[in-house]
Amino acid sequence: MTLAGRSLTRIADLSDEEIRSILDRASEYAAAPRDRMDELRGRIVAAAFFEPSTRTRLSFETAAHRLGARVIGFADGGSTSSVKGESLEDTTRVLAGYGDLLVLRHPEQGAAARAAAVSDVPVVNAGDGAGEHPTQTLLDLYTMRDNLGDLEGVRVAVMGDLRYGRTVHSLVPALHRLGADVVAVPAPGLGLPDDVAGHGGGVDEVPLGEAAASCDVLYVTRVQRERMSRQESAGGSGHLVVDGDLLRRSGSRAIVMHPLPRVDEISVDVDSLPSAKYFEQARNAVPVRMSVLSHILGASP
Amino acid sequence: MTLAGRSLTRIADLSDEEIRSILDRASEYAAAPRDRMDELRGRIVAAAFFEPSTRTRLSFETAAHRLGARVIGFADGGSTSSVKGESLEDTTRVLAGYGDLLVLRHPEQGAAARAAAVSDVPVVNAGDGAGEHPTQTLLDLYTMRDNLGDLEGVRVAVMGDLRYGRTVHSLVPALHRLGADVVAVPAPGLGLPDDVAGHGGGVDEVPLGEAAASCDVLYVTRVQRERMSRQESAGGSGHLVVDGDLLRRSGSRAIVMHPLPRVDEISVDVDSLPSAKYFEQARNAVPVRMSVLSHILGASP
Amino acid sequence: MTLAGRSLTRIADLSDEEIRSILDRASEYAAAPRDRMDELRGRIVAAAFFEPSTRTRLSFETAAHRLGARVIGFADGGSTSSVKGESLEDTTRVLAGYGDLLVLRHPEQGAAARAAAVSDVPVVNAGDGAGEHPTQTLLDLYTMRDNLGDLEGVRVAVMGDLRYGRTVHSLVPALHRLGADVVAVPAPGLGLPDDVAGHGGGVDEVPLGEAAASCDVLYVTRVQRERMSRQESAGGSGHLVVDGDLLRRSGSRAIVMHPLPRVDEISVDVDSLPSAKYFEQARNAVPVRMSVLSHILGASP
Repeated sequence: MTLAGRSLTRIADLSDEEIRSILDRASEYAAAPRDRMDELRGRIVAAAFFEPSTRTRLSFETAAHRLGARVIGFADGGSTSSVKGESLEDTTRVLAGYGDLLVLRHPEQGAAARAAAVSDVPVVNAGDGAGEHPTQTLLDLYTMRDNLGDLEGVRVAVMGDLRYGRTVHSLVPALHRLGADVVAVPAPGLGLPDDVAGHGGGVDEVPLGEAAASCDVLYVTRVQRERMSRQESAGGSGHLVVDGDLLRRSGSRAIVMHPLPRVDEISVDVDSLPSAKYFEQARNAVPVRMSVLSHILGASP
Repeated sequence: MTLAGRSLTRIADLSDEEIRSILDRASEYAAAPRDRMDELRGRIVAAAFFEPSTRTRLSFETAAHRLGARVIGFADGGSTSSVKGESLEDTTRVLAGYGDLLVLRHPEQGAAARAAAVSDVPVVNAGDGAGEHPTQTLLDLYTMRDNLGDLEGVRVAVMGDLRYGRTVHSLVPALHRLGADVVAVPAPGLGLPDDVAGHGGGVDEVPLGEAAASCDVLYVTRVQRERMSRQESAGGSGHLVVDGDLLRRSGSRAIVMHPLPRVDEISVDVDSLPSAKYFEQARNAVPVRMSVLSHILGASP
Repeated sequence: MTLAGRSLTRIADLSDEEIRSILDRASEYAAAPRDRMDELRGRIVAAAFFEPSTRTRLSFETAAHRLGARVIGFADGGSTSSVKGESLEDTTRVLAGYGDLLVLRHPEQGAAARAAAVSDVPVVNAGDGAGEHPTQTLLDLYTMRDNLGDLEGVRVAVMGDLRYGRTVHSLVPALHRLGADVVAVPAPGLGLPDDVAGHGGGVDEVPLGEAAASCDVLYVTRVQRERMSRQESAGGSGHLVVDGDLLRRSGSRAIVMHPLPRVDEISVDVDSLPSAKYFEQARNAVPVRMSVLSHILGASP
């Protein structure tokens, strides 16, 4: 019934109550981020990034520092013992001997669960390949709740690469659990996998204009070019772009979110609109990750 | 009238009074570097180095730590979101959501000004391609003032690659502003650009021996081999070297400075002479950058 | 007679009494690792890793943080000024102007002594090519003493690549100094060099089964494949493996150690046995390196 000392590898590991507790405490941190330097004083967070992710790594490190913890780690697996043939399990056991909590980013699905199984200290999954990235989901939920209040009945359109985008796969079930409605605006050929689409009340596909007109949230994701068909890539006819013109024409009242980095799927003319929330969303990574670290490390298990 | 909360992208952004204030506070820090751990407690400095510069990065980080701040960042742009196509502006907005101040190194001229234009927090330029590196200029001025007193009437020879060397381009106008005289000892074909040479009272070219005999400061810079003509590189006839013999023969009383790293343009036999100030100059990076961080972050804007 | 302010480049630089003092204080830190945050407050440890070594770097950084110090540095020489042609001596002098102690990892034997000769601050050798890695030896001794008590008369088998393994070359003479007996179980063609084998009472070669049956410690090291003969590599007949079956058959009461990373020279079925001490050994890196930093930095020279 408590997160203290527990690993966080999947969003499904959290009860609804635990999700709300994390978001609530994040609100407190967001209101006064600089008063917490004694909360995790003397604790060490080990950030083990076997693939680069500057945004995730730096926001976790910022969260640790704002709570007074210290940080060790690496930003890229290329210079670690794994290149000498060491197993993830061995590396995990060693790092667990240094830090009080392990933040793990790894290219292989299931890596976080494997690490948590052998680690003496809690493991927080910061993305494991096509698997999960639970704190990204939490900061997405936080941003929606912070802007829209309770998520019951809120209507969210997920857009872009819904087939391969790990972010969306974790977000959709979480939104359903909290009572939100979800529709999909997939890039051509990149619709939600059946197991995600069939979750909860199901996810209908709608055209972009209709989503903009009817939703409270447009959650845009980047389409990796190599995953588009040759025609798409060449003609661009199916490339989804959210721009100021679309939002005006559709009379949209939606907030616009994006896990970043974006390339061109949100036009820069949206940046100055009040509905643009993606940089705020990025900033929310800090209080939300502070809250996760605090819940896990704050009280002794 | 105050530096608090302001970005520092060019040395020209600083008034003479502000330069003096930075150098004065740096003197205080140099005298007692370890008593300042509470000054920036709870603040986070984000060091975004899109190209490697170990010396600049580590001295900024040391400065932040000596003031009690925490540091996040990256040492090399190769593993950042920019490789996924993210713009400098987007990366800046995200980092400004994590840190309280952004130290930016970037290979493109003008990058610091572009970042400062969109950042919610102050940006300190730590070198933008052929542009500026204002804190290098400040630590150079500090080292001269610390050794020679007021710079009014001090005679400085700038040597080596004066055409492409960013360091010299910022230093010469700053010296003129503070009343120093400047002469040039360029490597062949690598003289000062006209806009820098024509600045202030102008800059005369003089032979090395005359500079050594008549100047208070020999400011030596590294010539990048690829910029020398084939004859120069092969014959070495025009390669300028400061060694103990030169200093003795010319009866030089000049201090010898260099922004480092050096290759062979200052002979190692100079290292043990009292006039060798380049390692002291490197060390001065810490109190000077402490002073810059303190002026910008110390008081709320 | 004191370690304060001294460099540590070779295990031979330490008296028996100093070794015991380091191990004793490490025991105190291991018992209460989190109560030391004020001990080195305000001090800065510069970790200069000219070649990657995640384990060594992170345990030194953890040790510094647990004592309240701050850490600067780099994890890989590829992005430092040395690629612009700067000498190790110049880089050392610059880093000594930033930090209060320099932890140096370098691919060239003798690098630590060269750095110590020009540094204004103490240098701790964290591995210099085929040279030494004295804090590895100290944590190995610590682990043995922590499990077995006084090392007088303890019987240690060193196994694997004894010809090129730096770890073993420093460990064997230290064991002899502290009164332990050493036998060797070399991989074929990879026996101890004569100068190490002939040290102290000499080192006999024994078969693996006999070592397992008769020794208190099996100290296993990784054989780098490129150093094995073609037949060995292909046939594997001479490849030494410690597994549960060997330990049972020989009635071994030995603890099993390894500097890690391992590949397959210790079977994973040993991990769950009480005799497996290699992850504990890895964890001991922190209190031992805390003790080294504390001895050197704790009292003013």
